[in-house]
Amino acid sequence: MSQPPLRPADPVRPSFPDWMQGVQAQVDAALARYLPPGEAIPGRLHQAMRYATLSGGKRVRPVLVFAAGVLTDSASERLEVVACAVELIHSYSLVHDDLPCMDDDVLRRGRPTCHVEYDQATALLVGDSLQSLAFEILARADFGDSRRQLEMVRLLARASGSCGMAGGQAIDLEAVGQPLNQPELELMHALKTGALIRAAVLLGALCGTALTTTERDALDRFAKRAGLLFQVVDDILDCTASTATLGKTAGKDAAAEKPTYVSLLGLQRARELAAELRQQALVPLATFGERSQRLVQLTDFITQRRF
Amino acid sequence: MSQPPLRPADPVRPSFPDWMQGVQAQVDAALARYLPPGEAIPGRLHQAMRYATLSGGKRVRPVLVFAAGVLTDSASERLEVVACAVELIHSYSLVHDDLPCMDDDVLRRGRPTCHVEYDQATALLVGDSLQSLAFEILARADFGDSRRQLEMVRLLARASGSCGMAGGQAIDLEAVGQPLNQPELELMHALKTGALIRAAVLLGALCGTALTTTERDALDRFAKRAGLLFQVVDDILDCTASTATLGKTAGKDAAAEKPTYVSLLGLQRARELAAELRQQALVPLATFGERSQRLVQLTDFITQRRF
Repeated sequence: MSQPPLRPADPVRPSFPDWMQGVQAQVDAALARYLPPGEAIPGRLHQAMRYATLSGGKRVRPVLVFAAGVLTDSASERLEVVACAVELIHSYSLVHDDLPCMDDDVLRRGRPTCHVEYDQATALLVGDSLQSLAFEILARADFGDSRRQLEMVRLLARASGSCGMAGGQAIDLEAVGQPLNQPELELMHALKTGALIRAAVLLGALCGTALTTTERDALDRFAKRAGLLFQVVDDILDCTASTATLGKTAGKDAAAEKPTYVSLLGLQRARELAAELRQQALVPLATFGERSQRLVQLTDFITQRRF
Repeated sequence: MSQPPLRPADPVRPSFPDWMQGVQAQVDAALARYLPPGEAIPGRLHQAMRYATLSGGKRVRPVLVFAAGVLTDSASERLEVVACAVELIHSYSLVHDDLPCMDDDVLRRGRPTCHVEYDQATALLVGDSLQSLAFEILARADFGDSRRQLEMVRLLARASGSCGMAGGQAIDLEAVGQPLNQPELELMHALKTGALIRAAVLLGALCGTALTTTERDALDRFAKRAGLLFQVVDDILDCTASTATLGKTAGKDAAAEKPTYVSLLGLQRARELAAELRQQALVPLATFGERSQRLVQLTDFITQRRF
């Protein structure tokens, strides 16, 4: 008569918030294992790597990895590795972006940024080391299909580098004080935020059964629109939410005269754009039917998030 | 009666200087192909990546890759990929090390450092992007043995990160103004310089036929000693050669009160140590007989270099 242990309250599957929380907890625990212990030499560097990464981020990219993994019946252990690798790349980018020579920010996830808590040189090495660690754990795991695993390393590296995330950051730097039009802004964000979000989705799906070309194309269209959606919402929050809610300095983009969707389109039109992008992102998911439920829920979560 | 084209003057093989020059030219040409063109968006970032990397370095690590490749009859195309990946990691580390928050240097390879020629934010992104590119090209190549290729990605990532090169840099930071003893100094250098030199040797050998456990152990012993030798010679040159000869600021370590082999042992004893390390490095190479000739020649070159 007793329930089997760990059975979710929902008879079919846990609710989205419960499921997401489970993924976040799993990824946090895995990151804590993958990061070298704070006592291991060099201690200060390892402590700073843990400080920067184990600080209760939203783990949006890991949740995307797991949600995309549902499409291809991916094993949780593989998704965990991939989710951690993607999050380590994201974490490194935050540490470097916050440095004085970049965005010069002092607050991240409600705490002093890494270079404020430690020092700039350490923060530089933290970012460098987190990037190396991402590729190390992705290459170290045994997925039983080395060829596909190599493809995953290549995909993550491409998404991180000068034709991906770092490239978007470079365009952002050049754009300060310059009037960008919407296509230019979209190119910047397609790289700066979009590339890693797209990689998270594709990598999650690559953990399981093979996708058909049609499915892969559909997933790619979803991923690109979801990445743009995430950034539009980020821009809206930057100008509407408080620093306390965001855990990072609010209103920074406007203050720095950085082009944003809000500065370009105004708040009302930016909100309409977010709603349109949500709709557009969901269209290609129809290819996957019921299996895309987590991605649909996550898209709604991204659209409605308040922090 | 005519000689076949491209046949070296030496009837058996080119002389060491000619061979090394050939490797350097091949790697320089390959790096120029692997780095995105300066016109590709974001142009400034790509130009800065090329500026930092295509600047006539000695390419010691690529030459080590090729010299170790001789041991296992490795194909030149594979060695080229691996050599470029290792050199991109080295190049990224130089760009970041030169930043004001680290060594704050203005001269590298006889030219302004990357952040002086461009700016700090760009230099930060240059280093980040060069690291990603290293893993991208290593994962993208088709070596016909994906499992071993993954092992190579893992090895390079490990050598680069907080338990390798970046970790050594962190120990170096903590050591400024502190008296280190010789074992502590060796640990620092085993990571800071040694880890990537060791990786270059092992990765070169991994491009060809499989090594026995005995051979791999012997090669690892050589690699560790060669890495230490390289650093001891570097310390000697830092205090004996001119800025013009080195192409980077001479005497910096002493000025920064950084512990070096010369500050610890004095110049005479440091020179004796270099000679001893050269001998010790050559011992395990006996396992490989004639095939280790390039590594022997390279060890002598490292010991005798004047810049």
